[in-house]
Amino acid sequence: MSKQNTNSRPEARLAKGFRDIEAPELKALNDMTGKIREVYERYGFEALETPAIEYTDALGKFLPDQDRPNAGVFSFQDEDEQWMSLRYDLTAPLARYVAQNFQTLPKPFRRYAFGNVYRNEKPGPGRFRQFMQFDADTVGAESVAADAEMCMLAADTLEALGVKRGQYVIKVNNRKILDGAMETIGLQGEENTARRLIVMRAIDKLDRLGVDGVRQLLGNGRTDESGDFTKGAGLSSGQIEILEKLYAHQETGSQDFFLAKHATDPASDDDKIFTSDTGNQFVWAHPRFLDTYATIFAGSATALEGIEELRQISSLVRAAGYGTKRIKLDVSVVRGLEYYTGPVFEAELTFEVKGDDGKPVRFGSVGGGGRYDDLVARFTGEKVPATGFSIGVSRLQAALSLINDKKTQALGPVVVLVMDKGEVATYQKMTQALRNAGIRAEMYLGSSGMKAQMKYADKRNSPCVIIQGSDERAKGEVTIKDLIEGAKAAAAIKDNKEWKEARPAQFSVSESHLVQEVHNLIKRHQA
Amino acid sequence: MSKQNTNSRPEARLAKGFRDIEAPELKALNDMTGKIREVYERYGFEALETPAIEYTDALGKFLPDQDRPNAGVFSFQDEDEQWMSLRYDLTAPLARYVAQNFQTLPKPFRRYAFGNVYRNEKPGPGRFRQFMQFDADTVGAESVAADAEMCMLAADTLEALGVKRGQYVIKVNNRKILDGAMETIGLQGEENTARRLIVMRAIDKLDRLGVDGVRQLLGNGRTDESGDFTKGAGLSSGQIEILEKLYAHQETGSQDFFLAKHATDPASDDDKIFTSDTGNQFVWAHPRFLDTYATIFAGSATALEGIEELRQISSLVRAAGYGTKRIKLDVSVVRGLEYYTGPVFEAELTFEVKGDDGKPVRFGSVGGGGRYDDLVARFTGEKVPATGFSIGVSRLQAALSLINDKKTQALGPVVVLVMDKGEVATYQKMTQALRNAGIRAEMYLGSSGMKAQMKYADKRNSPCVIIQGSDERAKGEVTIKDLIEGAKAAAAIKDNKEWKEARPAQFSVSESHLVQEVHNLIKRHQA
Repeated sequence: MSKQNTNSRPEARLAKGFRDIEAPELKALNDMTGKIREVYERYGFEALETPAIEYTDALGKFLPDQDRPNAGVFSFQDEDEQWMSLRYDLTAPLARYVAQNFQTLPKPFRRYAFGNVYRNEKPGPGRFRQFMQFDADTVGAESVAADAEMCMLAADTLEALGVKRGQYVIKVNNRKILDGAMETIGLQGEENTARRLIVMRAIDKLDRLGVDGVRQLLGNGRTDESGDFTKGAGLSSGQIEILEKLYAHQETGSQDFFLAKHATDPASDDDKIFTSDTGNQFVWAHPRFLDTYATIFAGSATALEGIEELRQISSLVRAAGYGTKRIKLDVSVVRGLEYYTGPVFEAELTFEVKGDDGKPVRFGSVGGGGRYDDLVARFTGEKVPATGFSIGVSRLQAALSLINDKKTQALGPVVVLVMDKGEVATYQKMTQALRNAGIRAEMYLGSSGMKAQMKYADKRNSPCVIIQGSDERAKGEVTIKDLIEGAKAAAAIKDNKEWKEARPAQFSVSESHLVQEVHNLIKRHQA
Repeated sequence: MSKQNTNSRPEARLAKGFRDIEAPELKALNDMTGKIREVYERYGFEALETPAIEYTDALGKFLPDQDRPNAGVFSFQDEDEQWMSLRYDLTAPLARYVAQNFQTLPKPFRRYAFGNVYRNEKPGPGRFRQFMQFDADTVGAESVAADAEMCMLAADTLEALGVKRGQYVIKVNNRKILDGAMETIGLQGEENTARRLIVMRAIDKLDRLGVDGVRQLLGNGRTDESGDFTKGAGLSSGQIEILEKLYAHQETGSQDFFLAKHATDPASDDDKIFTSDTGNQFVWAHPRFLDTYATIFAGSATALEGIEELRQISSLVRAAGYGTKRIKLDVSVVRGLEYYTGPVFEAELTFEVKGDDGKPVRFGSVGGGGRYDDLVARFTGEKVPATGFSIGVSRLQAALSLINDKKTQALGPVVVLVMDKGEVATYQKMTQALRNAGIRAEMYLGSSGMKAQMKYADKRNSPCVIIQGSDERAKGEVTIKDLIEGAKAAAAIKDNKEWKEARPAQFSVSESHLVQEVHNLIKRHQA
C-alpha cells in the first residue's frame, strides 16, 4: 500500500469479480427467494442462518498447509492469529453447526439456508466471486428416501419458479458406482484420492468434451483449442476402457452417451410410467440400464450398493408421481466437491434461449447436491449421514429473466414538484399525506427547476407528478399530471402549439381530494 | 497454522464474535425487514445491493498506512496484492457506487439497502462482529428537506414495526453547531481533526457519564470504575466551560441536560403544537433553546448556519404532522462516524423492559444517520451533498422481541410416520399429496421406532402425525393423531389405562380424505 494513495483520490471501482445489483433485478431475486422459501418450508425444512465468517479449520476442505490459505477461499487472520475464512458454500458451516449443537437438535435435523457465498477464484463472464445459494439439507437420515426427496424438492422448486415441465430435468447418479468403477481399475485407497479427483473431474466434462476428450484426460492429457495442455490421470487404455463402460456402454452401439441412455430408457414419459404402474409401486424405469452396470461391476460391492440405492430412489420418486421426464439417471453427473459419498443430483435447464447476441444459450446446471455422510464426523468422529440440495440463485435468476415475459417496469413514486422553495413545508405535507395513505411518494429534493424535475420524474418512472404553483394555491387546488397518459398523448400529438392548448392528461383537483385522485390514477394504470 | 491440526479433529465452534440465527428469530427478522422495506419504498427509495467486499481504498475512512489495515475492518490481499475489505457499513459502498455511476443515475439518487456489515472490533454481550443494517440515503440533495425526511422515515418505520408513539424518539442535532463550538474554542483546522474527534466522542458519552464524567474526558482524562484510565482531550477549563454551554446551559440552572431541555421546550406534545400552528407553518418548537445557542456562538458563522438548518428541519417535520414527542432536538447527539458534516439523527427507544435477569433494560439507540456532503467527493473531487439513515436491524429486533407479546410458536410440519420400512414409497406418496395441497409435511426420515418418531414430531411442533400400519392399510385408511388436542387431553387424563381406552384426539379416515382432513385440522388450530 503506497503512501501517495493517501493524497491522491481513490478510483471509484468495484473489486474484481464483484458486482452491484440494481432495483429491477433485486425485485426479481426477492420474489424468487420468497417462492423458494415457500417450497422448502412446505417440505418441512426450518430456517437457519450461520455467519459469513468461520474459522478456516472449521470450514474444512480447504484446510491449508501453507501460511496463507487462500486457494479458493478468502482468508485472513484474527488478532489472535487464528485463520478465518469467508464461507465458500452453506454446507460446511451446517456441518459445524450440527456438530456444535448435536445434543439439542431434532433428529433428523432439516434446515434451509439462504445467503451469499464467496470464492477466491478467477472471475469470468457470468462467474462472480460472490453469489447466492439457497440450500436444504437433511442431517441424520441414512435412508435414500431423504435423497429421493431432494430430487422432488428440486423439481417442485423449479416449477414454482415458472420453469415448465419439460424445460428442466433433475439428473441423479451415485458416487458409489464411480467409486466401484475406481475399485475395479485398482484406484481405491487414500493414496489415490488425488488421482480419483482428476478422473471424476474428467468425466464431469463429458457434456462439453465428448468421449474422446474425456479419454485424453483419463490418459496422458489433452491439448485444448487454445493450445493449453492439461495433464491427464495417466490411466492405461485397459483402465480407461472399463471406465468408458460407465458412460459409453455398448448396448446400443452408440458412442453418444445421451442417445445411449435414452435408447435404454423404456419409459421416458411421465404418464406412461404411471399407467404401467400396476399395484406394485416398485416398478423400475431403467431396468436394462442398471442391469448392465450390475453386470459390468459385479466384482465391486460398492458399485452394487450404489446401483441398489438408485433403484430405490427411482421407486420412491415414481411412486410419488415424478416420472423420468422430471427426474432421471445420468451417469455423467459427478459434482466437483470432494465430500459427496452417495447419490448426487444436478438440476439442469434443458431449453435454449437466445442470448444478447442472438445466439442460442443453454443454461445447464442451476443447482445440485448429494449425500455427504462424513462431513459432521470431521468434528465428532461419529458418522452422521446427511444429504442436501443447493440452488445457484443468481444463475437461475439470470436464466429465468430470459424465459419470463419481460414485465413492464414497476411504477416509481409519485413526485411532488417544488414550484416555490418557500413552500417546501406545504409540499412535504402533501407528500406525507400520500405516504400515509400507502402511496409511494416523494417531494423533489434536488435544487433544479421545473424542466429537470419533470425529467427526474420520467427517469423514476413516476405515474404522475403533483404541481401547486401560486395560482393553484390561491384556489386551494393542485394539478395532477398523468405521465403515462401524457406519454401516450405526446406520441399522438405532433404539434407543439396543439399540445400546449390541449394540455392532455393533466387536471386540477381540490387539495382535499389529492390523495383519492392519485389513488384512482395509480389503480387505473396498474389494471 | 500448526501441522498437527491436519491430523487431529477440528473443534466445532463459531468464530469469536459471530453467531448463528435460528428459525424463530429469522422469521421475526424476515417479517421486520419486509415491513421496513415497505416503508422505505413508500418514501420513494429504490433497492440497491452492493457486494460485501470492496477495495479497501474505495471504502475509505480506514485507509491504511500500515501493511495490514485491519483496525476496525476485516481486510485481506487479492492475488494482485490489492487490499480488499469487508464493508463496515452500507454508506461507504454507496459513495463508491454513486461516484462510479454518477452520469447515468437520476439526481437526486434515492436508494435503500439491506445487508450484513462486518466490524473487526472486540465483541461483547450483544455486540457482534457481523450485524444487519437497513439504510436509506438521498444523494445529490442539498436541501435540509432531505434531512427532515430522514427523521420522518425513522419515525414511520418504528411505528410500522409496532413501536408505539411515546415509546421512541428521533433526536436531531447538527454537527455544524459542534463545529462552531470547536471554532469558538480554537479547535478548527485539519491539524485538530484528531482532537475534535476525542471531544465529540467525549460528548457522545454524556448519557452514560454525566456532565462531570464528560468534563474529565475533555480535560486531562478519566479513570473509570475498573481503574482504567482514558486520556482526555487536554482542553483548558475555559475551553471546557464554553463547550458545556452546549449541553449544560444555565437557563434553568440545572446540570441535568434532559431536564434542562424539557424545561425549555414549550411544546412537548404533538397535539398542542398542532393547535398552535396557525397559518404560518414555520412555527418553531424550541425558540428559546436555539436562541440561546445563537447568542452563545454568535461569533461562529458555522454554528449559526447549523442553528438555522435545525429551525428549518423543525418547521418541515411539524408541518407534516410530526411533533416533538416524535422528533426533537438533542445536542448530545454526536454520532461516532467521522464523515458527518451537518444534521445528525439518532432513533432511540425510550421505554424500559425487564431483561432476562428481571432488571430493567433501556435499549437506547437503534439507528441513526446524518448528512455527509464529502463522501462522494473523495472519488470525484466534486461535492455531492448526501444524507441518510440506518437502522441497526439486529439490535432493534432484540428490543422488539421484548415488547411484542410472545407469539405462540409457529406450527411445524405434519409428520407422516414410517410404520413399515417396506412401505416408504406409500408414505412418501402421502407426503407429496399433502405438500401438493400446500400443507407443510414430511415423511420421517430417521431410522428410529414409533416412540422416537412421536418425540420427533413433538420437537418439531407438528400439528398432527399420519399413521398407516398394516391394519389401516388393509382397510384403505389412515389414522390422524392430533398432537395439539392430544397434549390438552393428556393434561386432563391422569390414568394410563383410561388414556389407552379413550385414545383421544385420534381418528381414522379413508386414504382419499387424508388431505382434506389434515387441512381442516390445521385450520382449526390456526383459528
